[in-house]
Amino acid sequence: MKRYCVIMAGGIGSRFWPLSKNNYPKQFLDILGTGKSFIRATYERFLPLVPSENFIVVTNAAYKDLVLQQIPEIKETNVLCEPMRRNTAPCIAYAVYHILSQCPEASIAVTPADHLVTNEREFQRIIGRGLDFVEQHRDALMTIGIKPSRPETGYGYIEVNDKQNDAIVPVASFKEKPDLENAKKFLAAGNFFWNSGIFLWSTDAIMSAFRQYLPDLVHLFDEGKNMFGTAQEQAFINNQFERCENISIDYGVMERSKSRYTVAADFGWSDIGTWGSLYTHAAHDEDRNAVSGHAVVVETANSVVNIEYGYEAIVQGLDHCLVALRDHSLLVCRLDDEQQIKQWVEKL
Amino acid sequence: MKRYCVIMAGGIGSRFWPLSKNNYPKQFLDILGTGKSFIRATYERFLPLVPSENFIVVTNAAYKDLVLQQIPEIKETNVLCEPMRRNTAPCIAYAVYHILSQCPEASIAVTPADHLVTNEREFQRIIGRGLDFVEQHRDALMTIGIKPSRPETGYGYIEVNDKQNDAIVPVASFKEKPDLENAKKFLAAGNFFWNSGIFLWSTDAIMSAFRQYLPDLVHLFDEGKNMFGTAQEQAFINNQFERCENISIDYGVMERSKSRYTVAADFGWSDIGTWGSLYTHAAHDEDRNAVSGHAVVVETANSVVNIEYGYEAIVQGLDHCLVALRDHSLLVCRLDDEQQIKQWVEKL
Repeated sequence: MKRYCVIMAGGIGSRFWPLSKNNYPKQFLDILGTGKSFIRATYERFLPLVPSENFIVVTNAAYKDLVLQQIPEIKETNVLCEPMRRNTAPCIAYAVYHILSQCPEASIAVTPADHLVTNEREFQRIIGRGLDFVEQHRDALMTIGIKPSRPETGYGYIEVNDKQNDAIVPVASFKEKPDLENAKKFLAAGNFFWNSGIFLWSTDAIMSAFRQYLPDLVHLFDEGKNMFGTAQEQAFINNQFERCENISIDYGVMERSKSRYTVAADFGWSDIGTWGSLYTHAAHDEDRNAVSGHAVVVETANSVVNIEYGYEAIVQGLDHCLVALRDHSLLVCRLDDEQQIKQWVEKL
Repeated sequence: MKRYCVIMAGGIGSRFWPLSKNNYPKQFLDILGTGKSFIRATYERFLPLVPSENFIVVTNAAYKDLVLQQIPEIKETNVLCEPMRRNTAPCIAYAVYHILSQCPEASIAVTPADHLVTNEREFQRIIGRGLDFVEQHRDALMTIGIKPSRPETGYGYIEVNDKQNDAIVPVASFKEKPDLENAKKFLAAGNFFWNSGIFLWSTDAIMSAFRQYLPDLVHLFDEGKNMFGTAQEQAFINNQFERCENISIDYGVMERSKSRYTVAADFGWSDIGTWGSLYTHAAHDEDRNAVSGHAVVVETANSVVNIEYGYEAIVQGLDHCLVALRDHSLLVCRLDDEQQIKQWVEKL
């Protein structure tokens, strides 16, 4: 099997403070109480498509043990450790060079580690078909689009010329996160899809794109080409990685490419990037609260109460609020204001 | 010196959950951030009036070590341990019998361990004068009244016939906690004072009252009369104390006595019996929040935020609320509803 899955798991998830902290980011948490962390669920979701030995996890060196704890099936050498964060383009280049050392004709699915998918069967159908496509079209860079269900301003969008369902079609353009007015227009138009951050391509397609659009990155990695897949790989990366440009794969490659494709999928996807999206996807009590942990919740509605095991809480008299307690840190705020969490944490 | 001070420190203070829990009640906490626990402040407040060796603390056996930690000046044998709670009359009888074994002609000040006094000099003047009075009037039972500053419904009241300031006068009657309408009348009338729960009397006066109004209690304690002040005292109490009637000194003695006196004092007293009173007496920030601990408080007003050392918190978007975090327990509620804390804790 020449299919690989690259799980990008280097994020620190500061938007979920205090649940997700630097020492234990979101991808390693079971925020929704499904019994599995996001990264574990991601692995299992791709497992019918990709042999277990072909999973590559790219993460921060600090999280290597967490990855191996949660996916003990993968080899330690398949956990690639970034010495620092350099955005998705260098992360993906690192994984691609590593895969090239093992399988020059691979087809690769690249996925974030911390998204929710509720319809795994449809997911596997879409991704399987996409992998077939990029194996037949060895210049194609494919990104998975999600049919929008609301005028979301928190996601980037993919525009296509043709809104034909279920077909793999060329991308017309990528759109940055829109304001509400434009998000409503995108939703109404029907030919705009959320950008899921899941990519499919062959080694040929992605290496050709890297050479064309990010030649400096290729130059940096080519210096150690023969070290990938060997005992020297980590030392080379530790020396070289800092010099990589901090650039996303979307901005560095996808927006510039001429041979990019997408499909409008509908497999119950969310990036669970905010407490609000957690609230949306969690189970609710009769007062529309999403409560987890040992908590008595009284005269409270439309709120998230998330109490770590080992703590107890009484919450009364709140509406549209968030109460999260974990690891000696407490957050109480209005759900509507959660985009400010990062700045409050900095203040703290 | 024949003056003694009895500090009653057996309470469990469930109204201050989670700060005050069974294993660490309010009297041992520095809730106001003054640098001293309530019991330590009580000891220091009486120290100019009573020799250090004449302090008696009555507490639960479980709190003996906490008492000795916070008042290392007192002898272990002066910490009297109740095997269970039996209200203030048995507590005081226990202390009085213990004192009688050392000093039959003592005069005694009895005080709760967990009150706030801001004007200690005036306090010492009032108590000193009261002790002089009960030493001259060896049948007098004296209780300290507090000039009311608001129509408080959380305190009992002492009625006098004469509202002459600063004089020690007979008590006309004791009034239970009034409703707001009556509290307003009491305040307007000028001859009603808050009952502070601080008592002054000679051994003669209190023993005579016990004999007259609580003869069963006297009978119980008389059985072990010769054991007080000896190595047998604790075993005797452990056997006998459970049989004591659960009755307050107010109801059992003061309301029935004919020779009771009071003085209307004004020394900045509060029983800090509620989060609301803590809020009143604590320092406030510009948004009228009382904040203690490592907390970032944003867009929040008129609230108490009390975060234990070792925790950190972000609190946003609240008004008239209470956020308290201690010992793995969190309380978030409206300040106005704090009288329900006890029932929420039971639910938890």
